[in-house]
Amino acid sequence: MAVKVFGSPASTCTGRVLFVLEELGVEYEIVPVNMAAGEHKKHPHLARNPFGQIPALQDGDLVLFESRVITRYLVRKYGKDSGLLKETTPEAAAAVDQWMEVETAQFSSPISTLVFQLLFLPVFYSGTTDEKVVEAELAKLGKVLDVYEARLSKSKYLAGESYTLADLHHISYIHYFLTATPHASFFHSRPHVKAWWEAISSRPATAKVTAGMSFK
Amino acid sequence: MAVKVFGSPASTCTGRVLFVLEELGVEYEIVPVNMAAGEHKKHPHLARNPFGQIPALQDGDLVLFESRVITRYLVRKYGKDSGLLKETTPEAAAAVDQWMEVETAQFSSPISTLVFQLLFLPVFYSGTTDEKVVEAELAKLGKVLDVYEARLSKSKYLAGESYTLADLHHISYIHYFLTATPHASFFHSRPHVKAWWEAISSRPATAKVTAGMSFK
Repeated sequence: MAVKVFGSPASTCTGRVLFVLEELGVEYEIVPVNMAAGEHKKHPHLARNPFGQIPALQDGDLVLFESRVITRYLVRKYGKDSGLLKETTPEAAAAVDQWMEVETAQFSSPISTLVFQLLFLPVFYSGTTDEKVVEAELAKLGKVLDVYEARLSKSKYLAGESYTLADLHHISYIHYFLTATPHASFFHSRPHVKAWWEAISSRPATAKVTAGMSFK
Repeated sequence: MAVKVFGSPASTCTGRVLFVLEELGVEYEIVPVNMAAGEHKKHPHLARNPFGQIPALQDGDLVLFESRVITRYLVRKYGKDSGLLKETTPEAAAAVDQWMEVETAQFSSPISTLVFQLLFLPVFYSGTTDEKVVEAELAKLGKVLDVYEARLSKSKYLAGESYTLADLHHISYIHYFLTATPHASFFHSRPHVKAWWEAISSRPATAKVTAGMSFK
């Protein structure tokens, strides 16, 4: 039985789950949650995620929410040997955890704010971009990417020489940032960051999912 | 050789690491990082954590940062059978991951803002608490705790019937919130949340570490 993904293919967090499913070749079905109609804040979705957000996963009797929890589960269940989580030794696992947590704690906040200000706010909410917020968050993102540039000058991927969830978790927001904001140079002007993005964005699983990620 | 924890016993994030070390009975040494003198933003600390934050861990040649990464590593390395991470099956591991991520994504933001506004800001920075921010964040925290109350009416701990990292990651901020703000009723008025806090705060490892957690 195919696993069910409750969410939207265009959503950054749903995307995170779809990248893993495509990498692992797991059969899945997307069950749309109509956010415009507020379905994510009503039952039955609240029974899947009491915080009323997407995505959620159903695999048999198991229901999970939070994209970064779902991706870990899928790799452990269906891709133990995929190398996406290196849980062979505590040290190898920690390298992946390290950069997954950097994505969560350092990278996610500035880039998600920027994508909101420059894409979601004007397109969905007829709002006006706050240029002061953009300027401040670009400065933060630049500092984070300087750390990435230094890291990626030592290894091809964030957690070492092979592709892992630590890289994969970054894709959604970079995809929107590069396609829908005028600041692509933040990634392209840093040669190791640029090479890293070229490597991960050209993977067949990435290309297949990002083809469906558009708000225009 | 004892592991080295670079940080401060009073710090919420350093505390997260110390709780685990005490739970597992691992020998450790705290190496103070003088944040008032800006040591966390200079070498050699920047070589431990390029983002210039505490804590960092050194275990032999391995150096890690981000408290939630360090706790996972310590359990895998020194407490595989402690039950703090249930990595026996993908489903059991996902239950712990689920509530660790809720702590990160839902709980941490309102409670850390409240502790900052009500404790750190007036005590350290001679600042004035912004009552509007406090009101808004208390409302958010209340909604999160309503979800916890429902969850904890079904199981003694967040990830099931035994204590795990999902519970442990919450301790530092609840400790400061209860001891240094006038809003303890947020926890005490919800009976299952209250019972949960009594269970985790009375653990010997918790009590030993929180005894050193004070800014007054």
